[in-house]
Amino acid sequence: MSNESIENKFKIFSLNGNVPLAEKIAEVCGVSLGKSTVKHFSDGEIAINIEETVRGYDVYLVQSTNDPVNDNYMELLIMIDAMKRASAKTVNVVLPYYGYARQDRTAKPHEPITAKLIANLLTDAGANRILTLDLHTVQVQGFFDIPVDNLFTMPLFAHYYRKRGMVGEDYVVVSPKNSGVTRARSLAEYLDTTIAIVDEEEADNPETGYVIGDVKGKTCIMVDDILNTGIVFVEASKTLMKEGAKEVVACASHGLLSTPAKELLDQTEIKDICVTDSVSVPEERHPDKLSIISCGELLGLGVKRIYNNQSVSPLFTMEPKNYE
Amino acid sequence: MSNESIENKFKIFSLNGNVPLAEKIAEVCGVSLGKSTVKHFSDGEIAINIEETVRGYDVYLVQSTNDPVNDNYMELLIMIDAMKRASAKTVNVVLPYYGYARQDRTAKPHEPITAKLIANLLTDAGANRILTLDLHTVQVQGFFDIPVDNLFTMPLFAHYYRKRGMVGEDYVVVSPKNSGVTRARSLAEYLDTTIAIVDEEEADNPETGYVIGDVKGKTCIMVDDILNTGIVFVEASKTLMKEGAKEVVACASHGLLSTPAKELLDQTEIKDICVTDSVSVPEERHPDKLSIISCGELLGLGVKRIYNNQSVSPLFTMEPKNYE
Amino acid sequence: MSNESIENKFKIFSLNGNVPLAEKIAEVCGVSLGKSTVKHFSDGEIAINIEETVRGYDVYLVQSTNDPVNDNYMELLIMIDAMKRASAKTVNVVLPYYGYARQDRTAKPHEPITAKLIANLLTDAGANRILTLDLHTVQVQGFFDIPVDNLFTMPLFAHYYRKRGMVGEDYVVVSPKNSGVTRARSLAEYLDTTIAIVDEEEADNPETGYVIGDVKGKTCIMVDDILNTGIVFVEASKTLMKEGAKEVVACASHGLLSTPAKELLDQTEIKDICVTDSVSVPEERHPDKLSIISCGELLGLGVKRIYNNQSVSPLFTMEPKNYE
Amino acid sequence: MSNESIENKFKIFSLNGNVPLAEKIAEVCGVSLGKSTVKHFSDGEIAINIEETVRGYDVYLVQSTNDPVNDNYMELLIMIDAMKRASAKTVNVVLPYYGYARQDRTAKPHEPITAKLIANLLTDAGANRILTLDLHTVQVQGFFDIPVDNLFTMPLFAHYYRKRGMVGEDYVVVSPKNSGVTRARSLAEYLDTTIAIVDEEEADNPETGYVIGDVKGKTCIMVDDILNTGIVFVEASKTLMKEGAKEVVACASHGLLSTPAKELLDQTEIKDICVTDSVSVPEERHPDKLSIISCGELLGLGVKRIYNNQSVSPLFTMEPKNYE
Amino acid sequence: MSNESIENKFKIFSLNGNVPLAEKIAEVCGVSLGKSTVKHFSDGEIAINIEETVRGYDVYLVQSTNDPVNDNYMELLIMIDAMKRASAKTVNVVLPYYGYARQDRTAKPHEPITAKLIANLLTDAGANRILTLDLHTVQVQGFFDIPVDNLFTMPLFAHYYRKRGMVGEDYVVVSPKNSGVTRARSLAEYLDTTIAIVDEEEADNPETGYVIGDVKGKTCIMVDDILNTGIVFVEASKTLMKEGAKEVVACASHGLLSTPAKELLDQTEIKDICVTDSVSVPEERHPDKLSIISCGELLGLGVKRIYNNQSVSPLFTMEPKNYE
Amino acid sequence: MSNESIENKFKIFSLNGNVPLAEKIAEVCGVSLGKSTVKHFSDGEIAINIEETVRGYDVYLVQSTNDPVNDNYMELLIMIDAMKRASAKTVNVVLPYYGYARQDRTAKPHEPITAKLIANLLTDAGANRILTLDLHTVQVQGFFDIPVDNLFTMPLFAHYYRKRGMVGEDYVVVSPKNSGVTRARSLAEYLDTTIAIVDEEEADNPETGYVIGDVKGKTCIMVDDILNTGIVFVEASKTLMKEGAKEVVACASHGLLSTPAKELLDQTEIKDICVTDSVSVPEERHPDKLSIISCGELLGLGVKRIYNNQSVSPLFTMEPKNYE
Repeated sequence: MSNESIENKFKIFSLNGNVPLAEKIAEVCGVSLGKSTVKHFSDGEIAINIEETVRGYDVYLVQSTNDPVNDNYMELLIMIDAMKRASAKTVNVVLPYYGYARQDRTAKPHEPITAKLIANLLTDAGANRILTLDLHTVQVQGFFDIPVDNLFTMPLFAHYYRKRGMVGEDYVVVSPKNSGVTRARSLAEYLDTTIAIVDEEEADNPETGYVIGDVKGKTCIMVDDILNTGIVFVEASKTLMKEGAKEVVACASHGLLSTPAKELLDQTEIKDICVTDSVSVPEERHPDKLSIISCGELLGLGVKRIYNNQSVSPLFTMEPKNYE
Repeated sequence: MSNESIENKFKIFSLNGNVPLAEKIAEVCGVSLGKSTVKHFSDGEIAINIEETVRGYDVYLVQSTNDPVNDNYMELLIMIDAMKRASAKTVNVVLPYYGYARQDRTAKPHEPITAKLIANLLTDAGANRILTLDLHTVQVQGFFDIPVDNLFTMPLFAHYYRKRGMVGEDYVVVSPKNSGVTRARSLAEYLDTTIAIVDEEEADNPETGYVIGDVKGKTCIMVDDILNTGIVFVEASKTLMKEGAKEVVACASHGLLSTPAKELLDQTEIKDICVTDSVSVPEERHPDKLSIISCGELLGLGVKRIYNNQSVSPLFTMEPKNYE
Repeated sequence: MSNESIENKFKIFSLNGNVPLAEKIAEVCGVSLGKSTVKHFSDGEIAINIEETVRGYDVYLVQSTNDPVNDNYMELLIMIDAMKRASAKTVNVVLPYYGYARQDRTAKPHEPITAKLIANLLTDAGANRILTLDLHTVQVQGFFDIPVDNLFTMPLFAHYYRKRGMVGEDYVVVSPKNSGVTRARSLAEYLDTTIAIVDEEEADNPETGYVIGDVKGKTCIMVDDILNTGIVFVEASKTLMKEGAKEVVACASHGLLSTPAKELLDQTEIKDICVTDSVSVPEERHPDKLSIISCGELLGLGVKRIYNNQSVSPLFTMEPKNYE
Repeated sequence: MSNESIENKFKIFSLNGNVPLAEKIAEVCGVSLGKSTVKHFSDGEIAINIEETVRGYDVYLVQSTNDPVNDNYMELLIMIDAMKRASAKTVNVVLPYYGYARQDRTAKPHEPITAKLIANLLTDAGANRILTLDLHTVQVQGFFDIPVDNLFTMPLFAHYYRKRGMVGEDYVVVSPKNSGVTRARSLAEYLDTTIAIVDEEEADNPETGYVIGDVKGKTCIMVDDILNTGIVFVEASKTLMKEGAKEVVACASHGLLSTPAKELLDQTEIKDICVTDSVSVPEERHPDKLSIISCGELLGLGVKRIYNNQSVSPLFTMEPKNYE
Repeated sequence: MSNESIENKFKIFSLNGNVPLAEKIAEVCGVSLGKSTVKHFSDGEIAINIEETVRGYDVYLVQSTNDPVNDNYMELLIMIDAMKRASAKTVNVVLPYYGYARQDRTAKPHEPITAKLIANLLTDAGANRILTLDLHTVQVQGFFDIPVDNLFTMPLFAHYYRKRGMVGEDYVVVSPKNSGVTRARSLAEYLDTTIAIVDEEEADNPETGYVIGDVKGKTCIMVDDILNTGIVFVEASKTLMKEGAKEVVACASHGLLSTPAKELLDQTEIKDICVTDSVSVPEERHPDKLSIISCGELLGLGVKRIYNNQSVSPLFTMEPKNYE
Repeated sequence: MSNESIENKFKIFSLNGNVPLAEKIAEVCGVSLGKSTVKHFSDGEIAINIEETVRGYDVYLVQSTNDPVNDNYMELLIMIDAMKRASAKTVNVVLPYYGYARQDRTAKPHEPITAKLIANLLTDAGANRILTLDLHTVQVQGFFDIPVDNLFTMPLFAHYYRKRGMVGEDYVVVSPKNSGVTRARSLAEYLDTTIAIVDEEEADNPETGYVIGDVKGKTCIMVDDILNTGIVFVEASKTLMKEGAKEVVACASHGLLSTPAKELLDQTEIKDICVTDSVSVPEERHPDKLSIISCGELLGLGVKRIYNNQSVSPLFTMEPKNYE
C-alpha cells in the first residue's frame, strides 16, 4: 500500500527579525514565503499561527536574532515548537545573525555561556539543522550536535574590495583588536596583502592603543565580525591614523549599528563602512558612509543546496556570481 | 578524608521581574537576596554576573514572567545556565507568575503549545524544581518531569472576603467565562455559597452574554486567574448587572493590568478589584479600586518548607496567618 | 547507487484492546491488518511476535487502553519496542481511548501524574506520533513532545442528535458535573441551544446536587467524555428531573461501562445513552438503552490523512459523511 | 544560612507484589513500612496515594513483578512517578523477582527485548538504583545505566543442602536444560561435586532427552532460576531416573508455581523442591514437597548496606548468618 | 516545490580495522568504497577527512574493533561524528567483530560493563543501526535501543564441515568451556550429532579439566566464538585426547590470534582450525593449520537487505550460496 | 531513621596517563591515591578493577590524554563507567591535558569536531564535572553542559620569567602563529611588555614567515599552548632571529614533545624551553634545554577547593605560592 504522493517538499517561513532578507532567500530558491502570523498580545506574549499545512514538509525558518534579541529568539523557539507539533518533517533554522554568539565562554567566574544555552534551546525546541553566517567564533559550531553550516562573508567583502581595485601592498588588512586575527588573515589572502593589529597596552583603555605591524602610508581595511556601537572601529581608526595610515575603511559581517553608532561613525575619518544585510536596521540608524552588500544569494544558495542534498562546500570559498 | 564543612546551604536570587516580591520571600526565609547583576547591552543582549559564590548551594531564583515576558524568560534561562556552570547544587525556580501558561493546548490546528515549550526550556537549561502560584490550568504541572509545587491563591482571597463578612447566600461566586468553573467552585466553598457562570451564546461575542445560575439581588464575586486588559471582567459585570445582580466585585490571582485595563476598569461598576502581588505593575497602571494582597508570605513559606524538606501540603489549604 | 524501491509503505496492526475498531480503521484505509500474535504466558507475561516484515514501513498500532488497562498498555509498549527493533520507519500509535487520562494533575499532595507518566512511557518506548480521540483534558496533548492529533467526538454526537431533530430551545445540553463545561458548550453550539451544569453543594455528595442554569420543561442532553460506572449520569439525571426537566438523555465519548453501569443505568429514567465504539465492551455489559456510533471512519480518515501528509484540520469540525 | 536538619533519611514502601517479604526487609533495616495506598478503580486503573511525606528522603520501593506482572509493573512505575514528584531524594527499586527477565534477546526475528524495555521504563519513570536477586541472565545488569546490585541465591541453597549433608561425590548438580550451566557450576563448587546437563536431541521435545555427564547412582540436585509450571523439572527428572539416578531433588530461585505446577510436581518423583520467597504465591498452589527459604535477610542487608554506603560485596559470596 | 532528486542513496566507507572485508562487502553490494582518509598524527591523534559528499546518504561504516581496539573504536566514533555533521541521512555501523563484547556484566564487584559503555558511545556519537556478527552473548543486542542485526556464523561452519562429510555420530561438537553450550548445541543440530563440554573441577585450573558427555573414539569439533591466544582450545584438546577422543578440530567465529596463539596452536594436536575473516590478522600470526572462511557475503547481503528494506531473517538460518 | 555516617567523602584515583602528577595532586589534598588496576589484555582490551569501595564517595579521576591518546581516553571512559556502576556519588574528571582539543571546529568541509565528541563521550559515560588546564580554545568549555573549571598556566609562566627578571621593554612576548594572540597578550601583561606575532605570507609555508610587531634587539618569549613536534617554535625562532631578535626562549603549557621534537629543538637557537608537567614524557624525549614547572599544586588546590565547595576564582589570577 503506497501513499498518494511521495514527492519531497519544502517551505520557507520568515519570522519578524529580517523579512527582506527572507524574501531574497525565498526568491533564490524560487518559492514564496509560507503564510504565518506572529502576533504580540497586549501582555507581551507572542502568538504564532501557521496558516498553511506543513505536514511532511522540510521547513526552513529565517530569523535574524539581533535587537530585540530576546523577542526574536522566543519567536523562533515558539515557531519551531509549532512546526514540530504540526508534523513538519524537519525544521531547519536559518540564522543570518546569531545573537549572543559573543557570550561563548566564561570570561569571568560565575558567568553563563549564553551562546551554548541558545544552542541547547534551539535543539531542545526541535531544530534539526542550522544554517548561519560568519559566527563570532567558529567553535560555536561545536556547541551543537545537529549539523551546522557556517557560511563565510569574507568572499563577499573580497569581491567588494577587489572590484574597487583595493589589492596589493598599498593596502593592509587590520584587526581592530587583538582577537579576530584569523578573520583579517583570511581577507588579506584574498587581497594579496599583509595584516596588522590594533592592540591596547592596558586592557579596555583605547588611549593606550598601538599598532602591531606596518600601516605607514597604507590604506587600512579594518575587518570585524560585528559592528555594534562602532566604538571599536572609531578608536582603532584614530590609532591607525596616528601611526601614519593613509586612509581607513572598515567592513563587518553583521551591522547591528546600535545607538550611538551612526553618531560616532559620522564624526570619524573612516571613509567607507561596508556591512551585509544579515541584520535589518531602520534607515535612520545608517551611518552616511554605509554600503550594504547582500548575503541573500549566499544564504539562498545554501538553502537550495541543503534542500537538494548537494554539498555546500563550494559556497565556502568562491566569490559571488561564481557559486554555481 | 572528610571535607571541611558539610552544612547544607541555600541562597535566594532575584531577577528583574518582581524584585519587591523576591525581597518579601527572602525576608520570610530570614536571608538577604544574593548579589548579582543583570545588564542589558546596547544591542539588547542580557549579561548576567553572579557576584558571590554559589558552589554547592541550593539556589532559589525568583522571577515573574509577565511583560516584558520574553526578556524575563531569557534572563531566567541565562541565570539558570550561569548557576549550573557555577556549580550550584540545585537550581530552584520560583515563578509567582508563569507567563505563557494560557498557551497550554493547540486551540487551533498548527498552533504551538508554548506553555510546554517553556517547561522544556526551563528543564533543559537546568532547573531542578519549580515553585509556582495558581497555574492557569493545573495540568501544566504535568508538563514537567521535575517536581512542581503549585500553591493556590484561593485561600488568600477567601481570607480577604471573609474578613469583610462576604459569606453566605447573599453572595455568589461567578466565573466570568465558561471555563474556570473549578476555581469559582473552590472559592465558593470557602465562602459557603453557590456559583454562577457568565456564558456567551456566540463565542467571543460579549453582546450575547447571559448568566447560567442565579445572581438576582446578590453581590457577585467574580474570580479569574489572570486579569489582563480587564475586558472579561468588564463585559461579565455588565451581563451580571443586566441580570439583576446587586453589586459586583472581582478578584484575580495575577494582575497583569495591561493597557487599557486601568481605563476600562475605572469606568465600570465593579466596586472592588483584588489581586496579589505576583506581578509587579507600575502604579500608574493601577485601577482606582485596586486592592493588592501579598503572596510573599505564602511563597516564602513554600521556599522555607522545601528547603527544610518539610511537606508543603499545609500551604495548599490553610488561610494566611494559620500556616504554621 | 539507488535502492530497489523507494515507495513509501505503511501497515496497520491491532493489539487486543479493540480489534473490531482496528478492522474498521484498516478498512477505511483500504488495507488488511498486519499479522502478529500477542500471547499471554502461564505466568502472565506477554509475548509478542510480528509475523511479517515492517522494515522501513510506517506502522500504525491501534490499541484502546481500557480495562484491563495495565495489560493493554504493556501490550502496546512491548509492541512499540518490537516494531522499533524490527526497523519500522516510524511507529504511530492510535489510542481511541487513552487510559489514565483523568490522572492529569496532582489532585492531592504526593499523587502521581499518571497521564504524564503514560506519555513518557509511550515516547520512551519509541512512539513517533499519537492519534487519539477526545482526551479528558486537552492539555494532555502538551504532555507529549511528539505530534499528537486529538480528534473530537462532538461532531459525531451532533450528527446523531440533529438527525433526530434534537436542536433548538426545547433542548439543553448539560454537563453533569462542574468540570466539563467546555465540552457541553461545544455540543450546544452544534445544537443551537444553551447549556446547564449540575453542581453539588458539598463535594462528592450527590444528595446536595442542584442545577446551575435553566432546564425546566426541556429535554436535557447530558454530555461527558467518559461513562464509567454511570453513577455521575444517574445522579445528575435525578437532580435534573427534580428540577423539572422534561426528559433526560446522555452521551459520552468513551463507554467504559464498568460494573455496575448496566445495573444502574437500566434502573434510571435516562431515555437514551449514546457512546462511540472507542472502547470494546462485551455485550452483556451493555445497558438496554445503549446506542453505539462508530468513530472508525473518523479515526480511519485520520490515519489516511496523516499517512498522505494531508492536514487533519478538516476532521476537527465537520460532521460524518462530510469529511472529504 | 543552614537548613534546620541535614540528617539523611530513608523510608521503605511496599507495593502489592510481595508484602510479607517487604516486611521482612523493613524489619532487617529496623524500620516500619511507609504508609501508602494502592487502589484499583472499577475501570482497572491504579490510584496511588503516599500518606506520609518523602520530601528529601531516600526511598526504597519493594515490588516483586510476578503474575499479575503487568499490574505489578504499572503499580511500580506509577509509584516511582509519585515519589519523584513528591520530591523524594532518590528512588531505589528493590525487585526480588524481575518479571520479563527471560525476554532478554530477540530469539526470533521481529521480537521485542522486553527485559530491556522494562529497564528503560523503570529508568525513565525516575528510578535511581535497582537491587535485584538472581537475574535470569547477568547481562540484564547492562540493560541499565543506573547502578544495579544483583544478589545471588546460590549461597542460600548451598547453605540449605550443606545443612542436610548433601555434599561430595554422591551428589551431582544438574542443569535441567542446556543453558543455565553456569548456575549449576556455581552450586557444585559450594557442594564439592561435579555437574551434569539434561539436553534434548530435538529442541523442545523432552522425549528425546538424554544426560550429558554422569548421574548413575547419584542424588541429582537440579537447579534453575525460575520454577514456572514445573514442566522442565518434571521432564528432566524423568530423564535422570531413566539414566540411573538414585534420587532427584530440585531448587529454583524464583518459585512462580504457575498452574499446573502443583499438579505436575505432586505426581513426580522429585523428593524435595526448594525455592526462596522472592515471589509470593498463595498456599493452595504450593506443591506438597515445597520448602521455602527466605531471601529477606539477604535483601534487607542489601538495603542497609546501600543506605549506609557500605560495599555490598560481602553479600555476594557468603552464606546466611555469616553476612556481617 | 519539489527537490531535484529524491532518489535514495547509500555509500559504504571502511575504516582501518578490516579493509579487505569491507571491500568484499562493497562488492556484494555492487559499489566501490567511499573515499576518506584516516590519518594518525605524530601525537597519536586521529584525523579523519571524508573526501566525497554524504549529504542525504545512508552511510554504512565497516570497522572491526580488534587490536588495536581503542584506536579502532576511536576511529569509528570520530567517523560517526563526522558523518552526522556532514549531514548523512543515517549512519549504519557494520561491526564484524565487536571488541569488548566479553565485558558484558560485572563479574566482580566494582567492575565496568564495557560492552554496554561501547553501546552507549556508539549511540551517543550518532549511530542509527548496528549490523554485527555472532556476538559473544546475544543479550548485548539489548544494550542498544537502536536496531541491531546480529548475524550468525554457525551456518558458515556447518557448511564447512558438511562439505567435508563431518556429520553424524562419529563426530561430537564440544564446547571447550562450561559456558558457550548453546553455540555448540546449534552447530550440533546442523551436523546431526550430540554435544559434550569440557569443564574444570577447579575454576581456571586446566589441569583439573574433565569431559561432561561422551567423546570416546569420536572426532571432536570444538566451537567457540573467539579464538584469542588459543589457550582454551589447547587445554581442552589435551583433555579430550586424554579422555579417548579420536581426533580434535576447532572453529571460532572471530580469530583474534593474539600472541602466542600461533606458537601454542602449532604445537598442539588440533588437526584443523577454522575461523572467519571478521578480523584481519597479519599472515605471520596465522597458525599452520588455519582455514579462513569469509563472512563477506553474509555481511554484504545483510547490508543489501537492510538498504533495500528487506527482512534479514533468511540470513539467520540458511547456508552460504542459499541466501537468495 | 538516620544512616550511620553522613560525613561527605572523596577519593582520588589515577589512570595511566600521568601518575606522577596525580600523586602530586593527591599530596596537595592530603590523601593517598585510591587503589585500582588497569590491565591491558593480550588482545588490547583494557580491564579495570577498582579495589576499594567508592559507594557514596565523590571521586576524582586524574588522566592526561596525550599519546597514546585513544588508549588514555578509553581507560578514562571505562573507569567513569565503573565508578558510576559502583555507586560513586559524583565522578569528577581531572584532565591536565585535554587530547583532541585542537579539533574544535570543522576546518574543512566534512570534518568531525572531535573535541566536542570527546565532551559528549565523557558526559555520556557519566562524568559530573571537569577540571582542566589551559584549553586550546576557551570555547571548548561550552562544549559541555556540566561544570568545567579551566585553570590557566600563564600565571605559572609569569612567575617563572619574573623570578628570572625577564620583564619590561627589553622583552617581547611572541605568538609563533597568527592564532594564539590572546595567550601572548595575557603573558605580556604579567611581564609589563608588548607582543608580536609571527605570520606567514603563504599559509603553511614557513619560508614566507615574517614578524608583525617590533622584536629588534629584544629577547623574544614565544608562548603557545601545545609544544608538539617543535616545528612551530623552530620556524618562528628562525624568523625572529632573521628580523633582529637578540635571543629567543619559549614556553608551552603542554609539552607533548612528540618525535622529532628533541632532535629539532636541540639543533635550534632557542635558549630555554619551559613546559608544565601536565603531560608525562619519558626523559629520552626531553630536549636538552627543557625546564619543567609543575601544575600539581595548581590542580591540587583546584580539587581541594571544589571538594570544599569554595570558589576556584582565586586560582585564575594569582601566582604560585600566593594561592591561599
